[in-house]
Amino acid sequence: MATTQYEAVPEVAADAAAGGDARGGNLLVMKFGGTSVADTQKIRDVARRLVAAREAGNRVVGVLSAMGDTTDELIRLAYEVSPRPHPREYDMLISVGERISNALCAMAIHDLGHEAISLTGSQAGIVTDTVHGKAKIAEVRATRINDALDAGRVVLVAGFQGVSADSHDVTTLGRGGSDTTAVALAAALGARACEIYTDVEGVYTADPRIVPHARKLPAVTYEEMLELAASGAKVLQLRSVEFARNHDVRLHVRSTFSEAEGTWIVDEEDPVLEKAIISGVAHVDCEPLYRVREIEPATLFERLAAANVNVDTILQVTSDEIVFSAPLEDRAACEEVLGALDVEWSMRDDLGKVSLVGAGMKSHPGIAAKTFATLDRIGVESRVISTSPIKIACHVRTEDVPRAVTALHDAFELGRA
Amino acid sequence: MATTQYEAVPEVAADAAAGGDARGGNLLVMKFGGTSVADTQKIRDVARRLVAAREAGNRVVGVLSAMGDTTDELIRLAYEVSPRPHPREYDMLISVGERISNALCAMAIHDLGHEAISLTGSQAGIVTDTVHGKAKIAEVRATRINDALDAGRVVLVAGFQGVSADSHDVTTLGRGGSDTTAVALAAALGARACEIYTDVEGVYTADPRIVPHARKLPAVTYEEMLELAASGAKVLQLRSVEFARNHDVRLHVRSTFSEAEGTWIVDEEDPVLEKAIISGVAHVDCEPLYRVREIEPATLFERLAAANVNVDTILQVTSDEIVFSAPLEDRAACEEVLGALDVEWSMRDDLGKVSLVGAGMKSHPGIAAKTFATLDRIGVESRVISTSPIKIACHVRTEDVPRAVTALHDAFELGRA
Repeated sequence: MATTQYEAVPEVAADAAAGGDARGGNLLVMKFGGTSVADTQKIRDVARRLVAAREAGNRVVGVLSAMGDTTDELIRLAYEVSPRPHPREYDMLISVGERISNALCAMAIHDLGHEAISLTGSQAGIVTDTVHGKAKIAEVRATRINDALDAGRVVLVAGFQGVSADSHDVTTLGRGGSDTTAVALAAALGARACEIYTDVEGVYTADPRIVPHARKLPAVTYEEMLELAASGAKVLQLRSVEFARNHDVRLHVRSTFSEAEGTWIVDEEDPVLEKAIISGVAHVDCEPLYRVREIEPATLFERLAAANVNVDTILQVTSDEIVFSAPLEDRAACEEVLGALDVEWSMRDDLGKVSLVGAGMKSHPGIAAKTFATLDRIGVESRVISTSPIKIACHVRTEDVPRAVTALHDAFELGRA
Repeated sequence: MATTQYEAVPEVAADAAAGGDARGGNLLVMKFGGTSVADTQKIRDVARRLVAAREAGNRVVGVLSAMGDTTDELIRLAYEVSPRPHPREYDMLISVGERISNALCAMAIHDLGHEAISLTGSQAGIVTDTVHGKAKIAEVRATRINDALDAGRVVLVAGFQGVSADSHDVTTLGRGGSDTTAVALAAALGARACEIYTDVEGVYTADPRIVPHARKLPAVTYEEMLELAASGAKVLQLRSVEFARNHDVRLHVRSTFSEAEGTWIVDEEDPVLEKAIISGVAHVDCEPLYRVREIEPATLFERLAAANVNVDTILQVTSDEIVFSAPLEDRAACEEVLGALDVEWSMRDDLGKVSLVGAGMKSHPGIAAKTFATLDRIGVESRVISTSPIKIACHVRTEDVPRAVTALHDAFELGRA
């Protein structure tokens, strides 16, 4: 199995007595993101989709995000009141959006002649630690969900939130938290799949806005998805994929607005996989690169971790110089950490990153050579290269990113099934 | 004690172990309505007011309504999704507004250097029956509130909501529910007073828009307030006044926007009372009057009660004719009941009602005579008259209402302290 640089997820989603395969065989968790429930018309469409799954004989658990920009609006209110909103109260506030969308969807399901019940994170038994704003799920106490499923109801769970085990306060799970809720429920209930409904059709071999003939992938491994997500593919949050991998939850990313199959995200041994050598090319337009002199690496990366910076590539060029990259959104945090360290450092923000990802890479030498040859041929210079067993990433000038993506996509014939 | 036509409130707000006078001596419940928390600036003003009460040495419990039209907006969403929103889900939905305002206020209190915690109805231990949309409080389990108060915190409780004892579902208490929450908490915690902050200065001898020299009353009895509220004074909901009377909670209605004393609503024996003969003149511009022939009164009023019509005045004119009035908002329900009964009936909606209310009326004959003489003098004809031991109410033509109010206010010299 490929190693990744992401921390292991210590979350446990266990309710052995209640879940299990015997029961979960026809259990489906269906998660719908904010754009899928942006208005009441869309919520009724989601209700129809949940009812169709129920009528097909499934036990159905829905997890809905907040409608459109509801949560952003609540965040705006919080900062209107306070420059540093109290974390407990902030979670109390920003968790209401999901309660609204799920209650509305339950009403719509009732109107379609089916029974439904919406549950808050607390009512659904999503028990977390007390780290407000980025709580981790410690346990799913699924008794109430199972009782409702046994009664034939569609169960709707407010995503993104839980209740802390010790203080009984409302907690939120951080960005992409509804995906994590869905995966944790799928694990606890032993669901046969966790469907993630979104505004794209699935995971593509490259961004279709750059490569119009990019192809939708029928399946990728967890490791590939983690690398793709970390490399710029914004379909799924890292954390929910890690959770799914750690708990053997089969994910299915698909479109809210069509019936087509999307992309499965599964274990390496899963029969649904194509076993392609390369799965896709991901990219980010800008990923700042930092160069730091004369510092203990341990000190540097401890400080960056404390500031919640997601360090990506790390290179030690000489004994007294370290180069690392980190996402654009962590730039202010990086600069603050480096500024406080009293060291010589510099930053450049004119580079993006192009990453070739594929589980088959492990057993196929020569991929790196072909990658560099391809970039050479189109005259794109790679400034920093980093690899994992299933990824080759090159920092190139931002203006070269689209050409590099297209050239690599074509060189490895990713548009062909 | 005066009898009233309102049903006794069977709600019990008891947590004897936790509350009690010894502890409640410096405990204050402060309730703020929707206009008092209409925007984030006003919420910060409310926070300052709560903090001032805390700094004056009180244990402080705040109960905030939802901001401005938040709840109306949620109701709009519900009806966009469903013509008949499922009652359980409807309560789940419309209870979030109070959670928002109370969490925001807790943030603002933290910024003022004080500790605060906002609690949902469920977290605050407001246990109700399961009648969604108009649940009754069965019990207040105040352990968590008392623990937070003991820790020196300002405790904010989301008004208007509770949790059902058997199903653990979110319930709402109906219109004016936040007042009821505040009074129930004051009773359970043994508060020395329940302050109801609103956008008027208190209870007046008449509507100041009609009688500019109307006077703010320093105090009225529960019974007077019930009669005034039922007769058109919109300061407080009937239900919270009944609750306060049944549990000996001293109410203080006052303005959010000034420091002035408002109006106390207390027991007949309370020293704060002026012992005036007449307290005020209330009015409604339109109260429809129904005339029904050849029906068993029991049948008629059972049907009206089942349709939640708040019948006001009832007169039996002849053995085969009944006249009754009911508030304008119950007109559709009335017409439906009467239409279904297959009887001869008529309705007129050109009448309003003027009511003279005063606890001293019981021991002062001649009030009725003076009332009729006053109306006679200004040429206003009274169509229907109804009385209670502390009230005389006359239906007069809607266009005569302002003149009748002014004449009665002056005849009884209510503008003079």
